[in-house]
Amino acid sequence: MFVSQSRAAMQFSTSFIPDIRFGPGFLDGLPDVVKDFRGIRAVLIVMDSFLAARGLAKGLAEDLAKAGIEPWLYSDFSGEPKLQHLRAASEMAQSMDMVIGIGGGSALDITKVAACCAASGEDPMFYALAANPLPKKPLKKIMVPTTAGTGSETSATNIFTGPEGRKLWIWGPETKADLVLLDPELTISLPPNLTAWCGMDAFIHAFEAATNRNTHTGAKLYAHEAMRLVAGSLEVAFKMPGNLEARGKVLLGSCYAGIAIDNCGTAIAHNISHALAGLGPLHHGLATALGFEATLPWLVESDTPDLNEAARAIGLSGAAQLPAFVSGLMDRCGVVRALPKAFDGFSAQHLAAEMRAAENQPMRRSTIREVTDADIDAFAAAMMALPKTL
Amino acid sequence: MFVSQSRAAMQFSTSFIPDIRFGPGFLDGLPDVVKDFRGIRAVLIVMDSFLAARGLAKGLAEDLAKAGIEPWLYSDFSGEPKLQHLRAASEMAQSMDMVIGIGGGSALDITKVAACCAASGEDPMFYALAANPLPKKPLKKIMVPTTAGTGSETSATNIFTGPEGRKLWIWGPETKADLVLLDPELTISLPPNLTAWCGMDAFIHAFEAATNRNTHTGAKLYAHEAMRLVAGSLEVAFKMPGNLEARGKVLLGSCYAGIAIDNCGTAIAHNISHALAGLGPLHHGLATALGFEATLPWLVESDTPDLNEAARAIGLSGAAQLPAFVSGLMDRCGVVRALPKAFDGFSAQHLAAEMRAAENQPMRRSTIREVTDADIDAFAAAMMALPKTL
Repeated sequence: MFVSQSRAAMQFSTSFIPDIRFGPGFLDGLPDVVKDFRGIRAVLIVMDSFLAARGLAKGLAEDLAKAGIEPWLYSDFSGEPKLQHLRAASEMAQSMDMVIGIGGGSALDITKVAACCAASGEDPMFYALAANPLPKKPLKKIMVPTTAGTGSETSATNIFTGPEGRKLWIWGPETKADLVLLDPELTISLPPNLTAWCGMDAFIHAFEAATNRNTHTGAKLYAHEAMRLVAGSLEVAFKMPGNLEARGKVLLGSCYAGIAIDNCGTAIAHNISHALAGLGPLHHGLATALGFEATLPWLVESDTPDLNEAARAIGLSGAAQLPAFVSGLMDRCGVVRALPKAFDGFSAQHLAAEMRAAENQPMRRSTIREVTDADIDAFAAAMMALPKTL
Repeated sequence: MFVSQSRAAMQFSTSFIPDIRFGPGFLDGLPDVVKDFRGIRAVLIVMDSFLAARGLAKGLAEDLAKAGIEPWLYSDFSGEPKLQHLRAASEMAQSMDMVIGIGGGSALDITKVAACCAASGEDPMFYALAANPLPKKPLKKIMVPTTAGTGSETSATNIFTGPEGRKLWIWGPETKADLVLLDPELTISLPPNLTAWCGMDAFIHAFEAATNRNTHTGAKLYAHEAMRLVAGSLEVAFKMPGNLEARGKVLLGSCYAGIAIDNCGTAIAHNISHALAGLGPLHHGLATALGFEATLPWLVESDTPDLNEAARAIGLSGAAQLPAFVSGLMDRCGVVRALPKAFDGFSAQHLAAEMRAAENQPMRRSTIREVTDADIDAFAAAMMALPKTL
């Protein structure tokens, strides 16, 4: 690992990792978990509206109330978080001692930002794009992911749409969870295509964090384990939705992949998926998987030690085997290679322009192989040549 | 991992892991690290007296003062921490915003307890043996281990000698570090026998956490990596004390082993080493290594999946190969199998009685193979048959 390394190359930092509780049915124990924090009087639950509609919020609120904890609910959002969602949740959280996010990445991101804004009384825009330091003592936060993909439960990054429709972010360890509750039962009802797309997103988080220019010894521990867990179980989770063991492995893998990107970020596949999102609505996991498959044969030509190490972590003999493995995994998980019909209105030039946009450059620059302008054009052409049939 | 497991067997929890900064020379950057916490005015450095005597405290204090942070030093202790050391450090820390422990396990344990007692104003005895809950908001703590063995920098356990010479402990996540600074340069001056003893302690922490009755998926990630790092580099660190790469791997392995025992504890080798400590002074790492070698052939007969998995983590084909590997590692690291002369005054019966003492039963019970009374007698006899020549 450190063989022939300079002193500088030996250096790394890993950001703190919250308490993690893993187990099927663990959401039922939430009131006890909250009580363990001592002195929690009122909590705001931020929950995806379709989960709340299914009765999940009601049962939980009753159990919390029985335990002497006043439960409040914010679920008036769907899709990607917008500034108004962050504001509404932050306002409600101001009289709370804790926020609990239950849902996909959007619910968790709203929760993380609300915990900070409620503590300081500031508007979310005060912290957007690192304009000001986050408050040192945010509200306590519990994160309960119900999709296995974003890893938002263990990351410090939070994405939302700003006032002019622009994608903004709030970043900082102050937004990270105090406790993560991983309950594989919550992921069973995820439709198979979302299981596949989210799982691919998690795999690619881990792969890119393990192989980009920022990778290091500390993060690779989580990234390689995440790759093993997701690659080993995603197909079963997709084909046998009720298989708790497979669901658990993918959920844990997604959590570890979140730790990996929290430390090392992503690379070219995420440049493309963010660029695609700039053109029109498209599931982030699918967009990332499509961008990954289109760039991986080019990427592995650079044949770095990290690429080979990542390949061996999932039982391959070397980096050259990665493209076939990934395409095979996507086939077995039923990932249709296509874009939404709405993308018919855009050309490769449009996508290439988004890939070159300032906000997507960190993911271009972190890629272990230099991404030339000609590469951008070639990748954009390959992406836009996909059928627009979704 | 989860194959054919019941729902209960799938459950696990891992306790939070602090920020970790790893790099040679990183101690020089301590003032910046302290400033990153924002609002720190005065810090108490708790440092082993021999390190302070070597000038390490003076340089650090000057650098902190230059950065506008008032530095105080407590170094009036050596050997295992006693109640009076905890009291003195806690009292000094009352007017501080942060405590920084620099040294072996003793310095770190004193620091961790002082951060809690200073925040609450209570005496350490108030918290001994979990008599009362620890304060929710202890002082901020930075841990800088200078030996690679105890893993105290990532654990919640703190050992000290009470008023009647009795070993006591204070346990709780409130005592855990906010930030761990791993600087392999600090371990270079460790004498070779201490490098070997501390490194064996770290290896055994990882092995016992990965194979005892409390082990789980979450902890094994750290335990197996710790075993790989220590087994792969301890011999080089012992034979080439200045080899920073080997030093770094053993230091990181010790830190990960601390995470593993923080979640799953230890087993029979630590029962024996604590029992030996009850008879007379003996280095904890050496005592643990001797107890490990004496029990491992018996332990691996139980041939559990966890034992085999641990063996494979370090490149062996199965558990049966472990005893020869461990004895070989101890040989290559110059570990003399002997007890101090003072142990001449004790018999196997004395040691067996200590092994049966109430405070050592958790480590007996957690052992994956049942430890019968006859086993205790046999292990005690084997230990006391060692030459008393140290």
